[in-house]
Amino acid sequence: MKGVILGIAPRTTIVDITHQVTPFEITEGAFVVAETYRHFPKGTTHVVVVDPGVGTSRRPLLVQAAGQYFIGPDNGVFSLVYQQEKAKVRVLSNRKFFRKDISQTFHGRDIFAPAAAHLAAGVRPSVMGPVVHDYRQPSGFEPIRTGKHQWNGAILKTDRFGNLITNLRAADFPDVLQRPFSLVVGVTPVERLVKAYAEASPAEPVVIVGSSGYLEVSVNQGNAAKALGCATGSPVELTLF
Amino acid sequence: MKGVILGIAPRTTIVDITHQVTPFEITEGAFVVAETYRHFPKGTTHVVVVDPGVGTSRRPLLVQAAGQYFIGPDNGVFSLVYQQEKAKVRVLSNRKFFRKDISQTFHGRDIFAPAAAHLAAGVRPSVMGPVVHDYRQPSGFEPIRTGKHQWNGAILKTDRFGNLITNLRAADFPDVLQRPFSLVVGVTPVERLVKAYAEASPAEPVVIVGSSGYLEVSVNQGNAAKALGCATGSPVELTLF
Amino acid sequence: MKGVILGIAPRTTIVDITHQVTPFEITEGAFVVAETYRHFPKGTTHVVVVDPGVGTSRRPLLVQAAGQYFIGPDNGVFSLVYQQEKAKVRVLSNRKFFRKDISQTFHGRDIFAPAAAHLAAGVRPSVMGPVVHDYRQPSGFEPIRTGKHQWNGAILKTDRFGNLITNLRAADFPDVLQRPFSLVVGVTPVERLVKAYAEASPAEPVVIVGSSGYLEVSVNQGNAAKALGCATGSPVELTLF
Repeated sequence: MKGVILGIAPRTTIVDITHQVTPFEITEGAFVVAETYRHFPKGTTHVVVVDPGVGTSRRPLLVQAAGQYFIGPDNGVFSLVYQQEKAKVRVLSNRKFFRKDISQTFHGRDIFAPAAAHLAAGVRPSVMGPVVHDYRQPSGFEPIRTGKHQWNGAILKTDRFGNLITNLRAADFPDVLQRPFSLVVGVTPVERLVKAYAEASPAEPVVIVGSSGYLEVSVNQGNAAKALGCATGSPVELTLF
Repeated sequence: MKGVILGIAPRTTIVDITHQVTPFEITEGAFVVAETYRHFPKGTTHVVVVDPGVGTSRRPLLVQAAGQYFIGPDNGVFSLVYQQEKAKVRVLSNRKFFRKDISQTFHGRDIFAPAAAHLAAGVRPSVMGPVVHDYRQPSGFEPIRTGKHQWNGAILKTDRFGNLITNLRAADFPDVLQRPFSLVVGVTPVERLVKAYAEASPAEPVVIVGSSGYLEVSVNQGNAAKALGCATGSPVELTLF
Repeated sequence: MKGVILGIAPRTTIVDITHQVTPFEITEGAFVVAETYRHFPKGTTHVVVVDPGVGTSRRPLLVQAAGQYFIGPDNGVFSLVYQQEKAKVRVLSNRKFFRKDISQTFHGRDIFAPAAAHLAAGVRPSVMGPVVHDYRQPSGFEPIRTGKHQWNGAILKTDRFGNLITNLRAADFPDVLQRPFSLVVGVTPVERLVKAYAEASPAEPVVIVGSSGYLEVSVNQGNAAKALGCATGSPVELTLF
């Protein structure tokens, strides 16, 4: 992909965000896109290849939002962008901007990378394909209220340290910061909120407000995913007392 | 290595291809070189440090092929380049283009990176060392025909998703696309060809034509290497019925 | 972090050194800093986020040494820089060079990256914060002499191949190169010194002088960390006979 980009637009600045999204976890990919794009300059193109449906009829998209571009498959990986920004969504249909030979298994190299490079080289989005409205919309990112003081949620992402990032946005649960709560992660209740990982005792699972504003479960100097037997997709349940 | 390169040629564009070649697997390294170089622009220098023989008498090479440069050890890692391109091969012998102190264990930093940077800075290959013809030639990349309709091959690479890429080039086996076949991978026969990973049932191992044109064994939403107990170097046997 | 940097200083050349420091291992982080910085050009800024104390009162530092800059937490991760260079150490206190909102868990993005970018964009270190002298000093990097011919040390780093890099600097133990010795790693005595990995027999643990000048324990075509049941922090004991 990097070779294809540099062949078309040699002066492009390419940076790697991550190569460690859990395989096939579109939701985790969507979260990574959402937590990073706002920190990039206007005009950045984000190429997102979390693409278990490669080779099927799922469409390649170009999303214009927040003054930036997003290129990747129409599988929900841009859901949080749609949710957070006014987005114009195009289907990449103009084959002039693809590689000539398109493989069945690697559209990152054959479609997404060359389209991104042509964008970087100044091609206007409008010639790449038409605007569509029937793209795959958000789902599964919002916790479900199951009682007056109770919500069901899920783990959106597990990071390299084993921290478990939930889909519970801290700003939506201000009470967590002020009254007793229980966040059941898998089967383990976690009931202490800290302001820094190092406040927790060794091996103690705690809740912290993570760097993207979501409630996160951590074990100081340990690995919460291993300690709690959880991973991306695991259920969580929040109860306020 | 990146620091050494930027110290000599500050305007170089450096990109990482992979840091995940299976340790000591020269064949896998050779495959990665072969599947990537053709997608890079003319004039690119590929620095390849799959080098279990570092510190022995194995020679450092500069290969000129396809309008690009390849720098690395003379251990077969450029075999597929020799096979696919007209190549001029030099031994890097001019110590002027090495670091002053050369370690026993990291020629990537001390020989390959500085030579690559000097090339990028405009030094001509001819002053770096003489052309040689006794470099290590390809071996083990071609399947062996063992019967009228039978070939023995091997896994060239295991990717991050557990997909097993064989040394059976799809173009050499057009019948696989049209008649019954069995590809035994380790001890498991795989007999279905799909056009997209998502066509397979969950947990079903299938054959697909991979992005570099080789037959590849995959498990939809799963990990073929784990499911089949195989890895780089494992044997495969193809039978056409 | 890369987005934040490019937003402030768009022409910055960013390279990744490693994302694989063992979680929470400040000593290993310190070693990686020490083995890489000297190979980078003058004026380089090294951003080091090995930061288990993020969110506590540990201070953010800007270290000026060897004509380069180092930004990261005051937790000892720059210990080997202090030991090897004349260093001027500042506390990053000018919030003008931080992101507006500072998370509790990711100062790499919110403090270190923006400060580094402002430096790269030409801001003078002196406006970023005052010089301090009470920063955390080296500890645990030096072997302890326990007898006339005996030293206790530790593993500073485990690399991707499983090689175990000790804190025993080869230059301090010239006798190892010339007389019988025993290096006990965990519980295994290693008594052979080689000049190249490939000199060792398969599965034989050996000592080699690594690329940063420290004694290193390796297994040819194998993984010393797994074979010897050791990791970063494991004790070693050197005896010269």
